[in-house]
Amino acid sequence: MEFAELIKTAKVENVQLSCPGLPPIKGTLCITSHHLLLSSQPGGQEEQGTVELWLLIRNVDAVEKSVQNLGWYQTSRTNSSHQETRIASSLGTITLKCKDLKVLQLEIPGMEECLNIASSTETPKHEAQGWMAALPPPTLLPTNRLRATVDDNVLKKAARFRQGGRFPVLSYYHKKNGTVMLRSSQPLIGPNRKRCQEDELLLSAVLDGGERGFIIDTRSAQAAKQARVMGGGTEPKSSYPHWKRLHRPLERGRPLQESFIKLVEACNDTSLSMDRWLSKLESSKWLAHVKGALSTACLAAQCMEREEACVLVHGAEGTDTTLLVTALAQVILDPDCRTLTGFQGLLEREWIEAGHPFHFRCAHSAYSHTRLKQEAPIFLLFLDCVWQLGRQFPFSLQFNERLLLVLFEHTYASCYGTFLCNSEKERCLCEVKEKTHSLWSWLNQPSELKKLLNPLYTYNALVIWPSVEPQSLQLWQGLFLRWIRSSQYLDEAWAEIQRLVTNCEDAPEEGAGRTLCHSQPDAAYPLTITGTANKG
Amino acid sequence: MEFAELIKTAKVENVQLSCPGLPPIKGTLCITSHHLLLSSQPGGQEEQGTVELWLLIRNVDAVEKSVQNLGWYQTSRTNSSHQETRIASSLGTITLKCKDLKVLQLEIPGMEECLNIASSTETPKHEAQGWMAALPPPTLLPTNRLRATVDDNVLKKAARFRQGGRFPVLSYYHKKNGTVMLRSSQPLIGPNRKRCQEDELLLSAVLDGGERGFIIDTRSAQAAKQARVMGGGTEPKSSYPHWKRLHRPLERGRPLQESFIKLVEACNDTSLSMDRWLSKLESSKWLAHVKGALSTACLAAQCMEREEACVLVHGAEGTDTTLLVTALAQVILDPDCRTLTGFQGLLEREWIEAGHPFHFRCAHSAYSHTRLKQEAPIFLLFLDCVWQLGRQFPFSLQFNERLLLVLFEHTYASCYGTFLCNSEKERCLCEVKEKTHSLWSWLNQPSELKKLLNPLYTYNALVIWPSVEPQSLQLWQGLFLRWIRSSQYLDEAWAEIQRLVTNCEDAPEEGAGRTLCHSQPDAAYPLTITGTANKG
Repeated sequence: MEFAELIKTAKVENVQLSCPGLPPIKGTLCITSHHLLLSSQPGGQEEQGTVELWLLIRNVDAVEKSVQNLGWYQTSRTNSSHQETRIASSLGTITLKCKDLKVLQLEIPGMEECLNIASSTETPKHEAQGWMAALPPPTLLPTNRLRATVDDNVLKKAARFRQGGRFPVLSYYHKKNGTVMLRSSQPLIGPNRKRCQEDELLLSAVLDGGERGFIIDTRSAQAAKQARVMGGGTEPKSSYPHWKRLHRPLERGRPLQESFIKLVEACNDTSLSMDRWLSKLESSKWLAHVKGALSTACLAAQCMEREEACVLVHGAEGTDTTLLVTALAQVILDPDCRTLTGFQGLLEREWIEAGHPFHFRCAHSAYSHTRLKQEAPIFLLFLDCVWQLGRQFPFSLQFNERLLLVLFEHTYASCYGTFLCNSEKERCLCEVKEKTHSLWSWLNQPSELKKLLNPLYTYNALVIWPSVEPQSLQLWQGLFLRWIRSSQYLDEAWAEIQRLVTNCEDAPEEGAGRTLCHSQPDAAYPLTITGTANKG
Repeated sequence: MEFAELIKTAKVENVQLSCPGLPPIKGTLCITSHHLLLSSQPGGQEEQGTVELWLLIRNVDAVEKSVQNLGWYQTSRTNSSHQETRIASSLGTITLKCKDLKVLQLEIPGMEECLNIASSTETPKHEAQGWMAALPPPTLLPTNRLRATVDDNVLKKAARFRQGGRFPVLSYYHKKNGTVMLRSSQPLIGPNRKRCQEDELLLSAVLDGGERGFIIDTRSAQAAKQARVMGGGTEPKSSYPHWKRLHRPLERGRPLQESFIKLVEACNDTSLSMDRWLSKLESSKWLAHVKGALSTACLAAQCMEREEACVLVHGAEGTDTTLLVTALAQVILDPDCRTLTGFQGLLEREWIEAGHPFHFRCAHSAYSHTRLKQEAPIFLLFLDCVWQLGRQFPFSLQFNERLLLVLFEHTYASCYGTFLCNSEKERCLCEVKEKTHSLWSWLNQPSELKKLLNPLYTYNALVIWPSVEPQSLQLWQGLFLRWIRSSQYLDEAWAEIQRLVTNCEDAPEEGAGRTLCHSQPDAAYPLTITGTANKG
């Protein structure tokens, strides 16, 4: 059944839209197969032009409805009798809680209309259904370094020893000292402590003779050991003598989703006392997850930059906390990942092509009542960490908070195909590239691009080591309080700074210039051989 | 005894200074009667010029010392005997915890030198001693409005009915609608429910016939009632029928000082987990005090701006939370108080002349081991609230965070006379104006002034209503984490914005201008008749 067939009421007049921080708008509500559209009645609003709301129906995370009976009114009275025709008048209220954390309230005259509108917005949108079937085998893309000593046969065997076939692939080449960061899934050691010579060969081939490497396991030592019961595990020292294993447990899955839900609940409760708010902020544990992710990424970066050692990052599947760490470490280490183009490339490489299951993870946001099991805001946690980096290094990211907000919105509900599906293979199968447009092509239009630039950006060749002390990390108000209190003045402040920069661009500089490192970017070095090895 | 006589060791070589976030400096330490001075050894530091530390000894809040015996070393060995002359070598460490929250560590070779230096920095500086004796009677300065209907005799009697003689005086005239804000101390109702017709007349003379006023009592209803036992109390409805009393308890005194100490302790403990940090931040209650102060100031402002009513603010003495509320309300209501000059005027009027006992309140900061009873960071709380306003309204304050930091430093330890003593009378008696320089004359030099300006400032004629929801208030990192982690990049970011503004000042504006209200300030209206009524 097409979604359009489920629309029983396509248009209602005199609907009132309320949204915190804005005056209510009255207008006509239309529902199409993709959007809910409200346009204000022309002339109906004093001192207010026509306002239009376009809401992607896919953005709706939860729908709450209530119908209020306003009593009876009399429609006709015949002279000949005292009989009255009375019609029930009712006002329905639909609260739409959106995946981008916005909450809208629609007051709809008429019970039937209200229930129909509610059911149209509630209908699940199965645009990705059926994409899981008959996936092709994984594409194996080893690094050049590996290709020299490891043949395809070894790779195939090694892939069978890693969950989902995700054998160690190159995530990042640290040009400065030639060290590499690899990522993979867990080795399939199992209860019988199975070994795989090909996997061991692959990892020892990464190291030059005598070099030491670090394995950063994003699970606790205990959890990694317990994973053996289910066929997984972690690299034993005896079989991988040159690799030192470090365990840095990072939360994912259900506990991370719960953390997100608790934080959003606390943010939306504006009646809290300061004590209760801080206590709820603490008990949500969100900032602890931010601290954990940033600390682990710093550890990976330190291993490469300061210890001059190679690094392998993995947890269990290698598609969640693994990517969080490898992607963040690159933003910290590499100035090219901090440009707008470089950051888009990083997302393509380390999140999309690396197989982060966006469709599963972002199926619902913090409001949904029907919880699936696969949701987790791992990518949002990454965006939050990048925001923290931008706050601590106001010159070093070429893009601004707005880009991060746009990315958050589009991972949860988008008109573009960029974050569709769970893996590269699913996207091929569904012909996403043929059938949808890319978010990047929209964002990279000059008119959109200029909204995403950090006016203070200066190329900074240095590694940006963030402070990960709890005192240094802050709630990302721009995201979590976005729909609760207006950031109008802050937005205007940034717009003003942007305007100043634009006006000044050709003005002669007076006095001392910027004090940060001004060296121009080196010629972009190749980061071409990256791995995608999804088995779906 | 002069302080100089207490200096037993005036100069030590090879002293090492350590300070978090900076490389250690080795140099010569000198102690003068006012300063501790360390200059680095020229050429001794690689790639580092001569560094000088000037520390006002008055800035030292607590001194901790430890002496470490490094063993014995041999000074001479005579050929004729095997006797050795051995001298104990020891290294003393002095930790200087400063009132501006900075913590410095000095490593001093030699036990005697170390103990002497420590004792010189520990010696209490009694520069304000003896200033409390034989104070002249209070100067009574009624408002014009009151002068018309209330004669001097009435004022004198009314003054006797208020603690410390602080009868209701004009704090702020809200030109827009002609309402006024008054401040006073509590009425001396006492256990026998005494009345004072002159006080009642004074307050009813403020209101035009039929007008209603609000009394904002900064104590709880319970505390205000209990104050009767000690001779104080609050205005009973029966005697002041046109005044509606509102109780908004604000913390002061010992609990506020404890809150400050707890917060600084939590900020300095960088080993905390995120959970422990948030829990300590909560239990310090500092942000709850910020919320309380801002909320009460908003209430006072709302009474005037929205209810068009006159307001009287008082607590007990009328020199602490009272001034916090009246001063903050003016920053919220009045654009002229948000300019650099206007803010200095506000501080002179509402804090210094109004008799906030700076000497008592700021005798020690958060580190001191010897607690006096009168300390409380009420003025710091005010500065924090102003910082929150500046954060929420980035265009509306002409001055920047740096001014607030300078003010914080100078209230606790200063070379200038501005914040000396506890009241105007003490300052007259001590001839502060004759014997010291004003902080303002230093700050208002063009070279200093330009460091204090907010580059984004645009005159905003509107009332700035802050969000006082707990989610909207933040820890003032620039103050509380100032010495713990570097704010170098943030400072540079602001310097860069400042540079852009300076370069652009004469550049033609392109595109849309600023969106905030651009109206030029009205001719400054008179705020001349303000009250000081200190009895010391």
